[in-house]
Amino acid sequence: MYAEGSPGRPCPEHERPRFGDIATFMRLPTAPSAAGSSVAILGVPFDGGTTFRPGARFGPSAMREASRTLYAYHAQHRRDLFDRFPAADLGDVAVVPGDTRRTLERTEAAVAAIDGEDAFPLVLGGDHSVTLGELRALHRRHGPLALVQFDSHSDLWDELWGEPYSHATFARRALDEGLIAPEHSILVGLRGSLESANDAQLPQRFGIRVIDSYSYITAGARSTAHAIRTRVGDRACFLTFDVDVVDPSHAPGTGTPEVGGPPSWHVLETIRRLAGIRPVGADVVEVAPAYDTAGITALLGATVAYEFLALRVLSGLSPFVQPASD
Amino acid sequence: MYAEGSPGRPCPEHERPRFGDIATFMRLPTAPSAAGSSVAILGVPFDGGTTFRPGARFGPSAMREASRTLYAYHAQHRRDLFDRFPAADLGDVAVVPGDTRRTLERTEAAVAAIDGEDAFPLVLGGDHSVTLGELRALHRRHGPLALVQFDSHSDLWDELWGEPYSHATFARRALDEGLIAPEHSILVGLRGSLESANDAQLPQRFGIRVIDSYSYITAGARSTAHAIRTRVGDRACFLTFDVDVVDPSHAPGTGTPEVGGPPSWHVLETIRRLAGIRPVGADVVEVAPAYDTAGITALLGATVAYEFLALRVLSGLSPFVQPASD
Amino acid sequence: MYAEGSPGRPCPEHERPRFGDIATFMRLPTAPSAAGSSVAILGVPFDGGTTFRPGARFGPSAMREASRTLYAYHAQHRRDLFDRFPAADLGDVAVVPGDTRRTLERTEAAVAAIDGEDAFPLVLGGDHSVTLGELRALHRRHGPLALVQFDSHSDLWDELWGEPYSHATFARRALDEGLIAPEHSILVGLRGSLESANDAQLPQRFGIRVIDSYSYITAGARSTAHAIRTRVGDRACFLTFDVDVVDPSHAPGTGTPEVGGPPSWHVLETIRRLAGIRPVGADVVEVAPAYDTAGITALLGATVAYEFLALRVLSGLSPFVQPASD
Amino acid sequence: MYAEGSPGRPCPEHERPRFGDIATFMRLPTAPSAAGSSVAILGVPFDGGTTFRPGARFGPSAMREASRTLYAYHAQHRRDLFDRFPAADLGDVAVVPGDTRRTLERTEAAVAAIDGEDAFPLVLGGDHSVTLGELRALHRRHGPLALVQFDSHSDLWDELWGEPYSHATFARRALDEGLIAPEHSILVGLRGSLESANDAQLPQRFGIRVIDSYSYITAGARSTAHAIRTRVGDRACFLTFDVDVVDPSHAPGTGTPEVGGPPSWHVLETIRRLAGIRPVGADVVEVAPAYDTAGITALLGATVAYEFLALRVLSGLSPFVQPASD
Amino acid sequence: MYAEGSPGRPCPEHERPRFGDIATFMRLPTAPSAAGSSVAILGVPFDGGTTFRPGARFGPSAMREASRTLYAYHAQHRRDLFDRFPAADLGDVAVVPGDTRRTLERTEAAVAAIDGEDAFPLVLGGDHSVTLGELRALHRRHGPLALVQFDSHSDLWDELWGEPYSHATFARRALDEGLIAPEHSILVGLRGSLESANDAQLPQRFGIRVIDSYSYITAGARSTAHAIRTRVGDRACFLTFDVDVVDPSHAPGTGTPEVGGPPSWHVLETIRRLAGIRPVGADVVEVAPAYDTAGITALLGATVAYEFLALRVLSGLSPFVQPASD
Amino acid sequence: MYAEGSPGRPCPEHERPRFGDIATFMRLPTAPSAAGSSVAILGVPFDGGTTFRPGARFGPSAMREASRTLYAYHAQHRRDLFDRFPAADLGDVAVVPGDTRRTLERTEAAVAAIDGEDAFPLVLGGDHSVTLGELRALHRRHGPLALVQFDSHSDLWDELWGEPYSHATFARRALDEGLIAPEHSILVGLRGSLESANDAQLPQRFGIRVIDSYSYITAGARSTAHAIRTRVGDRACFLTFDVDVVDPSHAPGTGTPEVGGPPSWHVLETIRRLAGIRPVGADVVEVAPAYDTAGITALLGATVAYEFLALRVLSGLSPFVQPASD
Repeated sequence: MYAEGSPGRPCPEHERPRFGDIATFMRLPTAPSAAGSSVAILGVPFDGGTTFRPGARFGPSAMREASRTLYAYHAQHRRDLFDRFPAADLGDVAVVPGDTRRTLERTEAAVAAIDGEDAFPLVLGGDHSVTLGELRALHRRHGPLALVQFDSHSDLWDELWGEPYSHATFARRALDEGLIAPEHSILVGLRGSLESANDAQLPQRFGIRVIDSYSYITAGARSTAHAIRTRVGDRACFLTFDVDVVDPSHAPGTGTPEVGGPPSWHVLETIRRLAGIRPVGADVVEVAPAYDTAGITALLGATVAYEFLALRVLSGLSPFVQPASD
Repeated sequence: MYAEGSPGRPCPEHERPRFGDIATFMRLPTAPSAAGSSVAILGVPFDGGTTFRPGARFGPSAMREASRTLYAYHAQHRRDLFDRFPAADLGDVAVVPGDTRRTLERTEAAVAAIDGEDAFPLVLGGDHSVTLGELRALHRRHGPLALVQFDSHSDLWDELWGEPYSHATFARRALDEGLIAPEHSILVGLRGSLESANDAQLPQRFGIRVIDSYSYITAGARSTAHAIRTRVGDRACFLTFDVDVVDPSHAPGTGTPEVGGPPSWHVLETIRRLAGIRPVGADVVEVAPAYDTAGITALLGATVAYEFLALRVLSGLSPFVQPASD
Repeated sequence: MYAEGSPGRPCPEHERPRFGDIATFMRLPTAPSAAGSSVAILGVPFDGGTTFRPGARFGPSAMREASRTLYAYHAQHRRDLFDRFPAADLGDVAVVPGDTRRTLERTEAAVAAIDGEDAFPLVLGGDHSVTLGELRALHRRHGPLALVQFDSHSDLWDELWGEPYSHATFARRALDEGLIAPEHSILVGLRGSLESANDAQLPQRFGIRVIDSYSYITAGARSTAHAIRTRVGDRACFLTFDVDVVDPSHAPGTGTPEVGGPPSWHVLETIRRLAGIRPVGADVVEVAPAYDTAGITALLGATVAYEFLALRVLSGLSPFVQPASD
Repeated sequence: MYAEGSPGRPCPEHERPRFGDIATFMRLPTAPSAAGSSVAILGVPFDGGTTFRPGARFGPSAMREASRTLYAYHAQHRRDLFDRFPAADLGDVAVVPGDTRRTLERTEAAVAAIDGEDAFPLVLGGDHSVTLGELRALHRRHGPLALVQFDSHSDLWDELWGEPYSHATFARRALDEGLIAPEHSILVGLRGSLESANDAQLPQRFGIRVIDSYSYITAGARSTAHAIRTRVGDRACFLTFDVDVVDPSHAPGTGTPEVGGPPSWHVLETIRRLAGIRPVGADVVEVAPAYDTAGITALLGATVAYEFLALRVLSGLSPFVQPASD
Repeated sequence: MYAEGSPGRPCPEHERPRFGDIATFMRLPTAPSAAGSSVAILGVPFDGGTTFRPGARFGPSAMREASRTLYAYHAQHRRDLFDRFPAADLGDVAVVPGDTRRTLERTEAAVAAIDGEDAFPLVLGGDHSVTLGELRALHRRHGPLALVQFDSHSDLWDELWGEPYSHATFARRALDEGLIAPEHSILVGLRGSLESANDAQLPQRFGIRVIDSYSYITAGARSTAHAIRTRVGDRACFLTFDVDVVDPSHAPGTGTPEVGGPPSWHVLETIRRLAGIRPVGADVVEVAPAYDTAGITALLGATVAYEFLALRVLSGLSPFVQPASD
Repeated sequence: MYAEGSPGRPCPEHERPRFGDIATFMRLPTAPSAAGSSVAILGVPFDGGTTFRPGARFGPSAMREASRTLYAYHAQHRRDLFDRFPAADLGDVAVVPGDTRRTLERTEAAVAAIDGEDAFPLVLGGDHSVTLGELRALHRRHGPLALVQFDSHSDLWDELWGEPYSHATFARRALDEGLIAPEHSILVGLRGSLESANDAQLPQRFGIRVIDSYSYITAGARSTAHAIRTRVGDRACFLTFDVDVVDPSHAPGTGTPEVGGPPSWHVLETIRRLAGIRPVGADVVEVAPAYDTAGITALLGATVAYEFLALRVLSGLSPFVQPASD
């Protein structure tokens, strides 16, 4: 009677109610490796790099639970996402709580294994420090990546309390290690007070384009998506979504909320309009369920993961897909 | 010392604090029938038709509690809603938990009795399955109705798990039974992933016009209200508001939340701009208080019910009312 | 279709589900006065006398909602409570927020009216300041009352911030005004730190017997009930239950929680074993729903009110009732 | 990297942090059937039989999530529970929401299949109606069972609203169908108000022994366990734990809470002292996560399931095990 | 080891994690008076003027706790706010619960003392009644002030239940006492139902300009800021922010929520664009933490206080500052 | 207007309401060092040693906030705790998130400084790893300490995931480093499942006496206190209270809850009956506010800290104090 869904596909609601069955992502089958899958879900339940409210270690579990309500067919893209792109849930990396370095190594190994199977790693964090491990893994085969970062913070600090690895420094380390191509990278949603004038200059100093939160909201999803696609071009890119990019009303369940962010529909529409870019990996980070209400943050996180999965599917079709909604 | 308000009117705050007294809708008087009332509040505490998170059976109770803060005078319409339109709270239908068919029969009987008194049934759900009972009752005297549905789902499935009556099928049954006129009906706020390509074609297949969530948000309240009024014309119409039409941040207390919806102000303004249509009944459904925070979902539900009541009042004035805000 | 229950009785669950219908206490009928009733429910939604966390103004509403699950037949006393003792919910006193004096006057008037109909006033608070109004009313016909106070605080301060009327002073005022007979009064559940040595001597100084929380827990319900009955004798007594008498784990929804209290079963059993005393009024106070979780505090409050109602019923039967469980 | 634990065993914390990995019960391996397992975990996410607060359909998911913190070695019984008794999580029954009859059939089939493999079905509910399906399955091979029911309600009603199958009637149906042997059955924890005098006589009328809540608390765990063991003898028995048996402070996350129940330690110790009885199946029901706080109800439910599993292990050892703590 | 930050400045995160240390506003130093400070934080924990949900007495505490994440450097204004404007947290006024008059007197005295030191009083409420005390104090030296009120209610009632001082009447009293100049005052965000037609005319009757909620949302932040600046001119002004001006989804933690309000980003941007006006005092009121979720309302309140502080800083620089973002 | 209380004493409620003023412990004065104080409050907001639910970094802040309701006079000990023992709140250690070693060093330094002033360090954690730093500091002058540990876990693991310093290993490290005298140490409240048989033998192996949870509950507070006093004798001792020792119903706000624990009154009475022992330091750890409800866990933690403070005061009086309640 145990059901994880059909091979490579989510379990259909008409067969089994969505609230039932063990909580894999979208009730996809589990698998010990990415072999045979086009998309591999991977949890990284680590929050040792958090500087304010901890709890993102429970993010993968909460997003899997919330993903029960997602269906296989993408309405805007008019496509069953799993038809030609079988997926599996690979479970979680065996993180080492409190040890960022070892956790990054294990994350890198896990993501590299997925990438080595030509599968798309769709990672559920964890705090933003884990992205560094993913970038290291993908850089191996794909070289410096275009980073598309939805985030209310730049994460470009050099260190904090003497510690070089944390959710406040992941992007800086990625630059230091040459993992990303700043001239093709873009940060969307930046806002909030800063510790010093120096902080204000960091993105520019490293050559990363910024669309701040207010500009993003007023420019609209279409214009922003265009800017992102222009920046990224046809380069292999990595999509990282820090759930604190939206307003705390839409994502209370996160560690360092910043008031004044865009609503969910705005961000979801922006992502949908990225159809045509070529992602080689993606993650959703900073979902901290202990601060969530009615699971709305986890549901947003799961939905963004679903949209990232769709971008991968669309990029895998040839000839090049024109986004349905542009 | 027992106070339910003046005859046909809410109890005024200047006489008695709003947090006190037994929680009828807006602290209106109770009544055993709609005789003598222009508007009758009726609860249908049923959630046996829910396919994900249950709990809408507590919706009527929560919306009554939340409605304490609503006043008699409508600011935008510049009118005391109860001056010429006395109202009463008729309590709840004696639903049969787990038995959708019997509950629909009882709901139909209760609504028909209200309609038989020439009063306006304003129903507090309950899940969306209860709307079918209301439509059956109103169809008796008014024929096929124009359905104005605010909802993130179409509820047009034919069945689920072999069951033809549920919140996912109410609109399909209403079409099957000839209760609504699809060419005058409209669905506003549709969004979310679908189980299959077939689902995407359902509204169109049945001739119901759809304004999807993103189009709705970007087109604006004025334009959408115009589209609704054009669609409905001067036909007798039924207004149904599934609280999941707004974003989960604005309505966490519901059973099948879909991220990416419009904010409350957008929907409220749309409804206000419908002044002039001719509703013969209305409901607010899918408020599930166990998932609510600080009662904000119940407050939204109660406020929408208030706006529906206002539309009824405006339609009852002659000559035809021009909406104040258009 | 509006149902409030049979005349003088709660609406039976077999006829109508308990989660439905307008939330009167136990789904009893409403009434404008106590005429014809043996028991009258009365809310006093006032928290202007609160010194720490406010919110008890929502206590009556929350206890009514929670009382939906209470049935007419008392299992331990083996008696239908409403068979010979019809009851009604009289709604709330029109309190004056922020004005303790006027609220006390109105409470006194309302309770005196009930008492004048030879009905038993069962009051839902509100903070503990409201008890003074009730005592004033009942003192008129019954003289100095034996006060049975379940409370973690003595409420015997003379004033606070220059204000003589508050939840910290109600018992002191009752003594000053000669409303209670200290030699027949008893305080059960006292605990917590004190502002000064003087506070420690207050109950003794005024001649009120105290059973402190730890003694109460270890002595047991039977022994404590015996002590209360002995103290009260056959004198007309008043029962007041401050929900903070139980541990905050059992009653988080209150204004001045004190850790280290007894569990609910202990208190309920104590009350049941008071059968035979002669109460002329009772209240349950300090339920602050904004701090409650899953309604457990409100449910406890409603259940205690139910037990007080049972004590009234038992005292009204002749010959004198022997408690079933002693 | 996907890890579900060693074959037949929970995943050890020293290898992988407990907050990680997909949430099977105790992070046990999944399996499509009970073949090769001594114990099989099975979820029945159904709450269509609920008469007050729904939501127990999310019970299996919440108890799996909460079971992350349970370890293999039982401290009181001084035994690794999985050493000779491999276990697996079989996922959930494909329930039919709103259709109690079909759900019972499917539950019966699933449990019979487990029993047919000589494995112990450890069921996570769902509301109490699902127990009937389990009893039907086990009755096939084991005949009338001794029922050990921890519950604040007797669930012995004949029907409710004309419906014979619900959480209020499961025990009555089990008696009607001859599934349980009343002379060996016992109900522990009964309390609360009743609808009528008739309700008070039901257990006695059907020959089921009752230890009511107050007697249970004051008699103590040792004495109660002795009474249960005496009643059950060496007969094949079924253990059913309705989480509302404990006080709402310990289990707020349930559908029909009754204040005045025992604390968790009391119930857990009672269960531990049942070592030596011979269970052939067990379940934990009525965990409704939407009303829970910090997961404490789910944790209690998972822990009771763990204790039931231990009783099965102890009964499977020969010669007969003397409980360590007696 | 006790750290309150550097003299006149918040404690830097790089030195000490933000979640640590005693919760002063932004972890600023405390001080017994405003001597030597340009800005003085002052709490007024009073909610005796609340007419619906109480609890704003805990507002100062919650906003201080939430302010931990605010940094010294303002990103949009490109300025360290404390460089030339040292600040201190002066703690709270010794309010008198339940006594609005005495509390207003003490608030007036405290604010006058701050103003007397030529420091800027930045007040954390408390309900809106406390603003009257502040206006009385500032009127002494600055004469009738331009009032910039962000609020969903006008607070222009003459009395409620015979009481002239409450959060529903503060603006009326300020007019009566000549504390504000209506022709330079403006109310932004008004919405919701009204008790009578009379209420609708109050702002106009007293000459206060109103930008209602819907107009505000659709006109945009830039246009609204322009209107405010035009209205205020170079007059000494007072900024008062009732957190219920934003939608309840963004500020559930408040006493009289009104659905249909603007989002946080809209209001924050409006305030930023006020750079150049000349405030002599400011407050943030009506944060009621018991109804908050994940502290998002308190965080919004603290952030608005921060923005008000920035306006003060900008107004203090010469020559006149042009807002960076206009 | 800034008030922190009188020198060395909490601010009296009669002067200033308890919900007001900046949240120091019991509204005591702050101080940069322990010079002149008999008791020094110190926060250690660190949770990097947590193995399940994080969040104890917010423990000091939450306990300070909750301590507002504690008064100076101890009712059972009949003594004003601050009369001869002035106290101050020293704020928090500048912890290094994620770096247990450096945090331990800083904690050690801070506690040693307090001890060097002959003041009593009363520490608010933080997770249980921080206790090691305290023990290191106190061992310097006092030698191996008698450890009195209230805890549901032994914290005697040697390592976890290769990490020797965490909340699961603090007691083991203390033994390794010779900081505690096992023959005078005692662990009260142990319970829960274990990873292996080896875990069951740890306390015995290291010579630490254990009173497990069930024995503790049934033996009673008096007997357990006697056992502790006997074990400790007149040796310098350290009191450490892991809030998970009580049942999760009483302390939901913690990281690794174990169901089946004692209630709060039991533990508080045990502690009170320790009067006469000679503590040189104490802490309360593992309060994780994100999981708390209505602040009850923080209130328990603050109250236990208060009781520890009382034990210090009583031990400082000569001749030797007989506990009032024995």
